[in-house]
Formats: sequence, C-alpha cells, structure tokens
Amino acid sequence: MQSYQKMSKEELLEIKEGLEKEYAKFKGMGLSLNMARGKPAAEQVDFTMPMLDVLHGSADYMSENGEDCRNYGVVDGLAEAKRLLADMIETKPENVIIYGNSSLNVMYDTVSRSFTHGVMGNTPWCKLDKVKFLCPVPGYDRHFSVTEYFGVEMVNVPMTPEGPDMDMVEELVNSDESIKGIWCVPKYSNPQGIVYSDETVRRFANLKPAAKDFRIYWDNAYAVHHLYEDEQAEILDIIGECEKAGNPDMVYEFCSTSKVSFPGAGIAAIAASKANVEEIVKQLSIQTIGFDKMNQLRHVRYFKDIDGMRAHMMKHAESIRPKFEMITKLFDEELAGAEIGSWISPKGGYFITFEALEGCAKSIIAKAKEAGVAMTPAGAPYPYGKDPLDSVIRIAPTYPTLDELKTATEIFIICVKLASIEKLLAEK
Amino acid sequence: MQSYQKMSKEELLEIKEGLEKEYAKFKGMGLSLNMARGKPAAEQVDFTMPMLDVLHGSADYMSENGEDCRNYGVVDGLAEAKRLLADMIETKPENVIIYGNSSLNVMYDTVSRSFTHGVMGNTPWCKLDKVKFLCPVPGYDRHFSVTEYFGVEMVNVPMTPEGPDMDMVEELVNSDESIKGIWCVPKYSNPQGIVYSDETVRRFANLKPAAKDFRIYWDNAYAVHHLYEDEQAEILDIIGECEKAGNPDMVYEFCSTSKVSFPGAGIAAIAASKANVEEIVKQLSIQTIGFDKMNQLRHVRYFKDIDGMRAHMMKHAESIRPKFEMITKLFDEELAGAEIGSWISPKGGYFITFEALEGCAKSIIAKAKEAGVAMTPAGAPYPYGKDPLDSVIRIAPTYPTLDELKTATEIFIICVKLASIEKLLAEK
Repeated sequence: MQSYQKMSKEELLEIKEGLEKEYAKFKGMGLSLNMARGKPAAEQVDFTMPMLDVLHGSADYMSENGEDCRNYGVVDGLAEAKRLLADMIETKPENVIIYGNSSLNVMYDTVSRSFTHGVMGNTPWCKLDKVKFLCPVPGYDRHFSVTEYFGVEMVNVPMTPEGPDMDMVEELVNSDESIKGIWCVPKYSNPQGIVYSDETVRRFANLKPAAKDFRIYWDNAYAVHHLYEDEQAEILDIIGECEKAGNPDMVYEFCSTSKVSFPGAGIAAIAASKANVEEIVKQLSIQTIGFDKMNQLRHVRYFKDIDGMRAHMMKHAESIRPKFEMITKLFDEELAGAEIGSWISPKGGYFITFEALEGCAKSIIAKAKEAGVAMTPAGAPYPYGKDPLDSVIRIAPTYPTLDELKTATEIFIICVKLASIEKLLAEK
Repeated sequence: MQSYQKMSKEELLEIKEGLEKEYAKFKGMGLSLNMARGKPAAEQVDFTMPMLDVLHGSADYMSENGEDCRNYGVVDGLAEAKRLLADMIETKPENVIIYGNSSLNVMYDTVSRSFTHGVMGNTPWCKLDKVKFLCPVPGYDRHFSVTEYFGVEMVNVPMTPEGPDMDMVEELVNSDESIKGIWCVPKYSNPQGIVYSDETVRRFANLKPAAKDFRIYWDNAYAVHHLYEDEQAEILDIIGECEKAGNPDMVYEFCSTSKVSFPGAGIAAIAASKANVEEIVKQLSIQTIGFDKMNQLRHVRYFKDIDGMRAHMMKHAESIRPKFEMITKLFDEELAGAEIGSWISPKGGYFITFEALEGCAKSIIAKAKEAGVAMTPAGAPYPYGKDPLDSVIRIAPTYPTLDELKTATEIFIICVKLASIEKLLAEK
C-alpha cells in the first residue's frame, strides 16, 4: 500500500471521500459493538463448566493436609493450591500465599498495607511526603488507578520490545528514595503483548534501589495465556533472579486464574521471598481467618496439576487465536505501508495495541464510537489517563464474536484512515 | 449448694482434697479436648452440602438482572444476594454491598480505608495524632486485633445485660473528637450472648458524636443464629433508627453467612446509608473488579429466601442447643449457690461466658490446659488481651462432640472450684 504520508492533498481528499461513504454506511447500520473489554467470551467460560461438578454432595472435602475445606482455617491457602499456582508462575510453593478471587485486590491490599504499616519495618508510606511509582507505558489502567487512589506520583517509563527502558529504570530507582515501586506485566504485557527479555529480568533483579522498601510489583497476569501451542513465551523467574542477585525481598509477584477458570470466581495469589511471606501472613492473620478453601479445592481437583491447566489453556487459545489473527490480518491488508500506525502481533495475553499517528487516538476512538464501536478510552493505558502523544489505542479482541469483531475492526480501520488523513491534511 | 465464700478453711481444704483426686484422675487420662474454637462442628457444615449441587454443569448461571455470574462485573454484588443478606439483618437491599467470604475482612478494609482515605472527606486517620475506639468488654478478640494492628487506642466500656453502658458511651463519644468508632455485636454478643435492648439501640442512634467521622461498627454476626425456635431475640434496625434520629451515616453494619453455610466459603456484606454505600463502592471499584458472584448465586439458589435460611438455621440450632444446655445444666448443678462464678445462658450465638472470681481466670485456664482441655486464653475478650479483673472466660461449645464437651466441662468445673478455693484459702 502506498504511504499516506507521501500522498498529495488531492490524493488524500479522494481517498477521504471514499472512506466517508463507507463510514456513513456503517453509521447507518446502528451497530453496537465492543472492543473495550478484556473479558473472556461466553464460549471461554464454558470450558470451565466441569469444574463446577468436582465438588458435590458426596465428594471428599479434605485437603491433602487433612484440613476440612468447608470450615475455618488455613490463612495462607491449601498446600495443593500453592503448588498449582506456583507452577503456573514457575516459582516455589513456599513463596506463595493464596488469596481470594482477585489479584487486583491483592495488589490493592499490598499497596494499602505499605501505606498503613510500611514495608519490613520501614516508615509507613502514609507518613512520607512523597511516594512515587514507575509506570511502564503503555500499561494496565487498573494498576495506575490503585496508585492514583493512594496519591502516589506516577512516573512514565517507555516500553521497548524487550520490556521497560531499563536504563531509565536503573537511573531512577537507584537514585531516588521516594520511588517505592514499579508496575510490571512481564509476560504478554497489557496492552502491547511484550515479553520481558532475560536481560530485562536480570537487570530488574540487580537494581540497587535507593529506597530500602522499594518493591517490583510483578503482575504475572498472563503466565499461561499463550495464543499458540508452539510459540510460548518464557520469562525468567524474577523471585529466583532477585535471590541470586542478593535482593531476595525486592519483588512481589501476583497472579490469578481469572482468565483461566472463571473471571471473578477464580483464585489469586501473591508470591515473594520467605521474609516477605512472613510479613504478609502476619498482616493477613489480622485481616481474615482465611479465604475460600472450597474454591481452592475446586481448582485443584479440576486442573489436577500444571499440565491439566496448560491443556485447558490451549482451549482458550483455540477460541481466541482466530480473533487476534483476524485483526492483525486486516491491519496487514489495510494498513501495512500506509505509515499511519503500527501494531505488534502478540503471541499471548489479552490485547493488541495500535499505535496511531500522534494526536489521532482520541479522534479515532470518537469516530469509532459514533459508528457504534466502543473502544477503551484514549489515554487509559497511561497514568492519570493521559497519553502524552495521544497515540496509543488498546484493542480487546476476546469478548465479541468473530463476526462482530470483524465488523468492528473494519470500522476501526476506516476511522484510523479518516483521522490520519484529517491530520495529514491539516498539516499540508 | 453451699457458698464457698462462707466456708471455713477446714471445709475448703476437705473439698480441695476430693477435687484434687478427681483432677489427677482426669490428668492421667491424657485427654486432648478443645473448648476454644468458635467453629461449627463437622455435623453443622454437613447441613449445607446440598448447596454444592445447585450450581452444576447444566445450570443457568445468569443473575436475575441478566449478568453472567461466571464472568467479570457487578462490583457491589448480585441484586438477589443483596436481598437475601438484607433480609438476614433486617435492612433494605439498597443499603447492602456484597463482599467476599469474610466479614472480618470487610471490617479490616473499612478501618484501613478510614486510615488511608478518611471517612467522607474528613482527615484520613493516618494523619491524626490519636484515634480511639470504644470497646464494649468482654468482646470479640478479632475486632480488637484489627484496631490494635492500626495503633488505635482502645477504651474499655463495660457490658450490661442491655448492651454496652450507654451512659459511658454517650459521655465519651459526644465529648471526645478522637473517638472514631465503637465495636458492637448487638445480637447474642460475643462472648456473653447479650442482646442489645431497644433503648440501647435508640441511644446509639441518637448519639451526638464530637467526631464527624465517628462510626458505629455494628457486627451483626449472629443475626439468625438462634438456639431456640420459640425464643428468638430481635433487635431494632440500627440503620433505620440512625436515619430517624437524623444520623443516617453514623453506622456500618456487617454480616456474613460463615456460620450459616460454610465458614470460609460463605458470603459477607456491609450495610450502610446511601451516602456511605456510594463512598465505599467508589473505593471498591479501585480495589477489585468484583467478588465471587458464583458463590453469591450458590447461596441464593440454595436458600432461596430468608425463610429458607431461617429453616436452615434451625438445623444448626438443633445440633448445638444440646451442647449449650449441657454446659449450663452442669454449671447449675455444680456451681449454683457456690458463689465462685456466674454465667448467662444465651439464647443464640456461639459462646457462653463464665465469669470467675477476680484473679482466677488465668489459673482456671492453666489448670484446664494441664488436664488436656484447651480454652480461649484468659484476657482474649479484652483489648490488648488484658482482662483487668482476670475473671472472664469464653467457652466455645460448638466444635467438640457432645461427649467430648461433657468431659471438658466436668474438668473445667473442677478447675473453677480448685482455683477458687486456692484464692479463698490465700485470703483466709
């Protein structure tokens, strides 16, 4: 395809006329499509239905350690649940604490505890004048909402194809004592689908933070969420790497089965060093008598082990892969060479990121909305909802049907072209 | 029975000799009994087994509002779950937010939020020099642990047969701006089984707190936990009373189904005014995408409505009533008239409180332990674990079998008598 950048005003105007007709046609259809929600489709939650049958009236409800899962106790989770989730994120069971249904809730609680009680004997953050977090961008809006809610000053760090810009991370973390954390999604990052390289992970593990209570918030949300059987990303175990580097306590790792079993009815976990785990369990014992062990048991009995979970994840992959591939195929056909945006074809995770020309994201999303296609708001993948270049658009392919998604993508592409031409014309 | 108080030294020594023989006999049996745990017996959790079958592979997973309970969403809980728990604590569904599995966790989160973000625009408690809570005593140890963990100064308020000493509550709350809360278990209080009178509830609702952000923490833990079908305590609806008194926002009410369905695998809730609910949901939307709706659905489908829950609770009553009655019967037979302790026969809840002679609680509990009977530690029902009179002992009848409990109670009575005689002899 010819580059829009190199076209004359007349050529652009001619293309625009055609696009406007197509756009008007779609608008006239009164569509209501949604590419905003990072939510499994109904077909995907169906995969987990048999899990609901593993605990029934006549089943055995004892854990492998002899705890009656129907009664009080076991604040840090069943041994077998720890093993399953440890295997999921490739760490050791003794590093794991099983929580309730939501890893976001675990992350919120972790930030909250740091504010009220501090981290390992250091000053509670609520007593400090300034607390900063580094935020690799684009990133996950709900991470940023948590730190924003606590008044944390968020500092953007650009993403590279290898992970966050580690030169910048090192420079900031190693010199600024008010930097207490960094939000990371190391595998199939939200929203770009980037996988942190081994070098990136090692550089993380070898940070020399100015703040003794600095922690890496390692949200391994898509640990087993591959799109392909034969192209599965692997990342180094950050807990092990931190240990090797003499920084055993520097990381909290988070995960859940939300997009493995049932979103909202899964199980979540934190993983960290022995000393961190001890500190967290001390607090947890004040907060609760224990989380839902029946649901832990349900997961363990259903998946049995990590192989069972991996096989299950291939059902998800087969269900959503065509959606991802359809989008990137249409992008290739319709946008490759036009020089009005770029994208990465992810090998896992839940999103595709489209990077539009500077200043076009809001306009594209507004146009899509007008034609009945809901997109994640522009700016959402940035702290405070502010994309400095107004360029990044997060696309969530999983929830709509393939047909709906195809129409939505066609409309999206028209909106990209229209908004880009408007920008290019304004510059002429 | 003759009063021990009026006995001569010789009479006491003679009784003591007999008791010591009995005590030695029990000690020789190498028993391991437990009256410490406020935990349902295995028989009780069995009652809820059919609940595990209501959600199975072919069931309908849609809420009455058409939400797929297997997927993300609905941060404040299903409408039908709100209705069920509202009926349980006799308030309106619109006052209710459904949480995860533990009301203790909800209370912890409520205190934590007040520390980090303040209550309705007031200064976050972490920025204050002093925060105080009133603690009716004896009370629930885990309440006190939460406020202790946050460095709250706890002020004891004596319980009366009508509830907390309201003269003292009014005087303190209405004059001291640093008092931000009071822990209450209004029905079948933990550990005494006291039911707050209508006058007590109305006086609570009509407090004129010096602190604008004062809240009553109304833990309605035993709302439907009656021991008798025909003697069921009722308390006034505190939310409605606060509204009438022009203090609509002054109370947070808590409840859960932990001792209704499965401890640890139940559902919990907070109930409060519209303004409180709005503030809480705002925070909750940062903390989580939503709690486990499948478990909410499981509860609603199984109990159907409050009548179903009430009928279910009568199974619990039939199971545990003999345990409570056995203990108070033995107390009546063995201790009435001896003037070495007092107790209330509760009509519901989970505990019996034995009030020993001053300075005897620790000694009784130590003796019981030596004979193989674990009791809740002396002092546990008081802030900081300090019973100023060393007199109150919490007895938890539900978990052991009736036979185990009978032996444990016999041993306990011997320990009460021995410790009391030692005290009386020392004073002679």
